[in-house]
Amino acid sequence: MEKTVQELAQYLQGTYENDNPELKITGVKGLVEAGPQDISFAVPPYVEHCHKSRAGVMVLSPQDPPLDGRPVIRVENPRGAFALLLELFRPQEEVERVVSQYAFVHPTAKVGANVAIQAFSYIEAGAVIGDGCVIYPHVYVGKRVKMGENCTLYPNVTVREDCILGNRVILQSGAVIGGDGFGYVNQKDGTHTKVLQTGNVILGDDVEVGSNSCIDRATVNSTIVGSGTKIDNLVQLGHNDVVGKNCLMCAHVGISGSVTIGDNNTFAGQAATTGHITIGSNNLFAGRSGVIGNVGDNNKMAGFPAQPYKEWLKTEASLRKVGDLLKKVKELEKEIKKLQQQ
Amino acid sequence: MEKTVQELAQYLQGTYENDNPELKITGVKGLVEAGPQDISFAVPPYVEHCHKSRAGVMVLSPQDPPLDGRPVIRVENPRGAFALLLELFRPQEEVERVVSQYAFVHPTAKVGANVAIQAFSYIEAGAVIGDGCVIYPHVYVGKRVKMGENCTLYPNVTVREDCILGNRVILQSGAVIGGDGFGYVNQKDGTHTKVLQTGNVILGDDVEVGSNSCIDRATVNSTIVGSGTKIDNLVQLGHNDVVGKNCLMCAHVGISGSVTIGDNNTFAGQAATTGHITIGSNNLFAGRSGVIGNVGDNNKMAGFPAQPYKEWLKTEASLRKVGDLLKKVKELEKEIKKLQQQ
Amino acid sequence: MEKTVQELAQYLQGTYENDNPELKITGVKGLVEAGPQDISFAVPPYVEHCHKSRAGVMVLSPQDPPLDGRPVIRVENPRGAFALLLELFRPQEEVERVVSQYAFVHPTAKVGANVAIQAFSYIEAGAVIGDGCVIYPHVYVGKRVKMGENCTLYPNVTVREDCILGNRVILQSGAVIGGDGFGYVNQKDGTHTKVLQTGNVILGDDVEVGSNSCIDRATVNSTIVGSGTKIDNLVQLGHNDVVGKNCLMCAHVGISGSVTIGDNNTFAGQAATTGHITIGSNNLFAGRSGVIGNVGDNNKMAGFPAQPYKEWLKTEASLRKVGDLLKKVKELEKEIKKLQQQ
Repeated sequence: MEKTVQELAQYLQGTYENDNPELKITGVKGLVEAGPQDISFAVPPYVEHCHKSRAGVMVLSPQDPPLDGRPVIRVENPRGAFALLLELFRPQEEVERVVSQYAFVHPTAKVGANVAIQAFSYIEAGAVIGDGCVIYPHVYVGKRVKMGENCTLYPNVTVREDCILGNRVILQSGAVIGGDGFGYVNQKDGTHTKVLQTGNVILGDDVEVGSNSCIDRATVNSTIVGSGTKIDNLVQLGHNDVVGKNCLMCAHVGISGSVTIGDNNTFAGQAATTGHITIGSNNLFAGRSGVIGNVGDNNKMAGFPAQPYKEWLKTEASLRKVGDLLKKVKELEKEIKKLQQQ
Repeated sequence: MEKTVQELAQYLQGTYENDNPELKITGVKGLVEAGPQDISFAVPPYVEHCHKSRAGVMVLSPQDPPLDGRPVIRVENPRGAFALLLELFRPQEEVERVVSQYAFVHPTAKVGANVAIQAFSYIEAGAVIGDGCVIYPHVYVGKRVKMGENCTLYPNVTVREDCILGNRVILQSGAVIGGDGFGYVNQKDGTHTKVLQTGNVILGDDVEVGSNSCIDRATVNSTIVGSGTKIDNLVQLGHNDVVGKNCLMCAHVGISGSVTIGDNNTFAGQAATTGHITIGSNNLFAGRSGVIGNVGDNNKMAGFPAQPYKEWLKTEASLRKVGDLLKKVKELEKEIKKLQQQ
Repeated sequence: MEKTVQELAQYLQGTYENDNPELKITGVKGLVEAGPQDISFAVPPYVEHCHKSRAGVMVLSPQDPPLDGRPVIRVENPRGAFALLLELFRPQEEVERVVSQYAFVHPTAKVGANVAIQAFSYIEAGAVIGDGCVIYPHVYVGKRVKMGENCTLYPNVTVREDCILGNRVILQSGAVIGGDGFGYVNQKDGTHTKVLQTGNVILGDDVEVGSNSCIDRATVNSTIVGSGTKIDNLVQLGHNDVVGKNCLMCAHVGISGSVTIGDNNTFAGQAATTGHITIGSNNLFAGRSGVIGNVGDNNKMAGFPAQPYKEWLKTEASLRKVGDLLKKVKELEKEIKKLQQQ
């Protein structure tokens, strides 16, 4: 792959400056690793590192400062441009679309066109695999699972019976979709008897689930993840959770059972919620937030129990003053005693 | 499946009121989804939602209010009744009891009667699989593993060598039983050399382990989980832990190594303990508790470091007053200065 | 296996006291389980339990007290001696070095000498498996993966394309090496479009990764784990992390993306960091530390946000006094009012 800076500016719908438009670029790399034939990018606070980079051309936003006469392509969203450049210079390797003779595909499963099912994968009775899906080795697809088009299931994924996947769903290795929810009846003798988990999981279009994350099937009805929601590694979604569209859930997030969550929420790492609550849309929960009650829309929250971010900052700041406060109050006590003795 | 309300009341050992005893019920659903031919249930605080439900009959406790003349079956434990109704109307699908020709079963393994071992599962030398066990695809059962009767191992489960499972054990997908404990000797040159983990894991009867949870084998002797203990997803039990009977451990709980835990303890989500401590019985640890010392019996604890729940509530309440306290002390300081200047 | 105490003292490079040097020892066990023919060990605070042990001989350090005339072998590092005794009395079972006819090994993969590849494992095109590696069932080794000598990959491990493993790397069951990093471009319409994760993961010599832990591949370049670093279960390392040598990361630790970490750091359970920070060497982060900024060398830190351990202790102590402080300030207020009314 070889592109001129002019071609790249056009591809990125950007403008270029200080450059020989015929300069040939052959790769995309990080600021530190890039050489004279590479394109790189920066966003604040990394823009200042551009001066030290050996990259042939750099992608910046119109708001970033000029670069001492060095070649720059300006675009609105340099991170987005970087993603486009990766797709141009490092396209994903094509997977051969064939059903391996070493895979097990039940005769009643329906497999679409242009599908790859690799060795040692297991497709159960009544499963439907949409056109263009890629199923890596050691994947289990349970009975009557329905999968849309162009899904990718990486090695060692489990999708249990009756779950439904939209189009372009990506399941990273070790993800478990539709494991039994954690539901028991506590008996008088102290034992816990299992409540059958008879529902399923529905993942909308463009959902991605990270490595070793778990989304439990509903007790009845469905655990639902809305279209465009992206889930990182080692995340837990409990039974009967309903998550909206375009949410982001970072690693180690834990959502208890029967929680309803709106659209466009971000849960940073290790954030968690109690069960049976409702969370609106457009909220941001800072890392390790612990949400223990309903939340409306458009909040930025932090702490445990989670509170509005600004209040949390104040609380945290005040707590750091407690040591001084203890000393101060002792002094005041002495002053008062002196006054009393006058 | 079709049952009259009378038959259902009998099945649930309850009483019915306001009903045509011959009304036919064909399914069990949640309050919101249920229609006129469905039975549903409610427990506080959801009982008030019954009025809006279209369910043909609802299961409530004798303590719940009357339902405006609508049909009700009264039982002591509505949640337990719901579990029974799920077993009646939505019995688990039977798994064909056959050893797949695509599974690997070592010639020295002993496989009981009525066992299913599905394709691509691997049963090692000397393993014993009890009667009625169901082993899904991609399960690994190591050398000399002993498994009681009627266990269920979902896809992608690993049970390492020499581990012992009781009867009716359920391992959800991705669970790892008997992985090496995290044990090293720190050498003077800064390196860490591995301590062989030569023990095993013993799971009692009716233990359930959630998706992608890990129970490490002991360094010597056994990591033990007592009968009836239920473990949720993504939980970590360290080497040489000994957990009693009928405990509940929710998602993301982490128990460090060499911890001894009694019976009937509940660890809510993300709760964790330090290593080498002893915890009694009948304790409840709130979500994200951090237990750093021994704990007796019958405590409800919260916070990090974990403290009695009521103390924790007081502490949390007092901490929220620190901001005001800072202001108040400044005012008092001024008052004192005034007094001093008089 | 049968060794005299004299032979064992020699093997451990220790000295023995109070003993019949010809006493025959046949096993190594914990203090509680050991019998008269077993050797055991203790380190503080467990040394006092030695008196109750039935062990034939015990390993202690020269600093520990005498044991009432009972046989003792003295060594500098009793825990290290215990590890050596486990290797002597309980050597790991040899795995038959053969490539199973039920494994899939791509014709272009290069498999070294003395390698075991067990049934249902999948070795992709261009992969290189070094001499002496042991690959258990259900392992996926992606395209062009390079693996050094004597690595052990337990069942259900995934190593994605282009990752590189050093010598003697151990991957516990369910570990995922090289899953996609969590990278998206946030579009104006609220959707998140995937950034291709085109880099890889490099694990140094003697790295161990615990069960169901995840190390994400870099967006570009490499996520790196230095030689000798040991990672426990359910740990998350984000894309482009660079971790130094001989670190220890306990269960449920989460390191966000683009974090640079030096050598010899210990992260206790559930500790976590924000992204894009730099951490020096020789630091100890207590359990559940939350690191939100750069950290130098040689620190012991705790709390969230993480602060120096001693400060954290003071802060925690002062916070426990807030309840009393509130009362005290109310009293002072009354005293001041009295003074004002005089």
